Amino acid sequence: MSKGDETKEAILDEALALASRVGFTGLTIGQLAEQTGLSKSGLFAHFKSKEQLQLQTLEHGRQRFIDVTVRPALAVSRGEKRVRELFEGWLRWENEVVPGGCLFITGSIEFDDQPGPMRDALVRNQRDWLDAVATVADAAVSEGDFRADLDPQQFAFELQSLTLGFHHYARLLEDEHAEDRARTAFESMLDRARAR
Amino acid sequence: MSKGDETKEAILDEALALASRVGFTGLTIGQLAEQTGLSKSGLFAHFKSKEQLQLQTLEHGRQRFIDVTVRPALAVSRGEKRVRELFEGWLRWENEVVPGGCLFITGSIEFDDQPGPMRDALVRNQRDWLDAVATVADAAVSEGDFRADLDPQQFAFELQSLTLGFHHYARLLEDEHAEDRARTAFESMLDRARAR
Repeated sequence: MSKGDETKEAILDEALALASRVGFTGLTIGQLAEQTGLSKSGLFAHFKSKEQLQLQTLEHGRQRFIDVTVRPALAVSRGEKRVRELFEGWLRWENEVVPGGCLFITGSIEFDDQPGPMRDALVRNQRDWLDAVATVADAAVSEGDFRADLDPQQFAFELQSLTLGFHHYARLLEDEHAEDRARTAFESMLDRARAR
Repeated sequence: MSKGDETKEAILDEALALASRVGFTGLTIGQLAEQTGLSKSGLFAHFKSKEQLQLQTLEHGRQRFIDVTVRPALAVSRGEKRVRELFEGWLRWENEVVPGGCLFITGSIEFDDQPGPMRDALVRNQRDWLDAVATVADAAVSEGDFRADLDPQQFAFELQSLTLGFHHYARLLEDEHAEDRARTAFESMLDRARAR
């Protein structure tokens, strides 16, 4: 990595943390300058516009998300084990990587009524994630861990619902049982999915 | 209702529709003036500040939400039937009453990292709703419809997750199967909750 690339990576890490707390709407070049101590003109040279800053931060988040969730899941064997690892990865992402919680969830709400490149990118990311969940669940069917008549897309919907529920309980309600509730619901999903 | 009260109600209906589409952050006296054709100074006399406009719109939403979900549920007999009616009421609220989708969900994301009266009011509303769901599920246990060892709070978490999943699929992904997926997941919840 060149010195310039390293700088850009470090700036995008800060942008990611900021967007996680204040949302993409609050992610401005001015705010990022305050956060990083870099000059607004320097940041403007990197990003050109607020929308470019948002899009590049989202893309940086997507890569970090894949590193934390998809990659470790692919490192374990196919089947229920991999499904579990995907869920554990998502919890790591939400609890440890993004300080204000998943910025894709925040972005989804901010842009669902705003057509444009940010909405398009968010939809693409979410579809990729749901496809990854469905593919991993489907592989658990092929491996004989999950029952043959499992609907992988329905499984992905229910897992997605559960992550949204966890985010809601943990972030808004600050419910100390949020993770227990999510884990209980996940175990129940696995239990229903399992081949008898 | 006095003429003044009627006017205020009509304004709050418009504010509710606006907040549902653009969020509470986008709900300004200026935007509302444009929407209603009323003067900014007239609206300012009603609401005094943007925060008051947000808080009164949220309270108006809370009352409409109760009318659409809790009241019809209380009109049917206790037990599984009432649990179903509560879920149907929520779907009516999301699909028919608020044109841009549930504004409590939008508000939850907008304010989860912003301490203040709006966050407090949102948390109160959500806790009331979750308590209502848990109470109705608990009554279904007493009636013998649901199994004795059902955890009503866990039931509320899972129902909440499901409504968040539905909102996400319907609003961001514009998935035509969103409602089918949510109904399938809800039937599965009932199935697991039922006494054998």
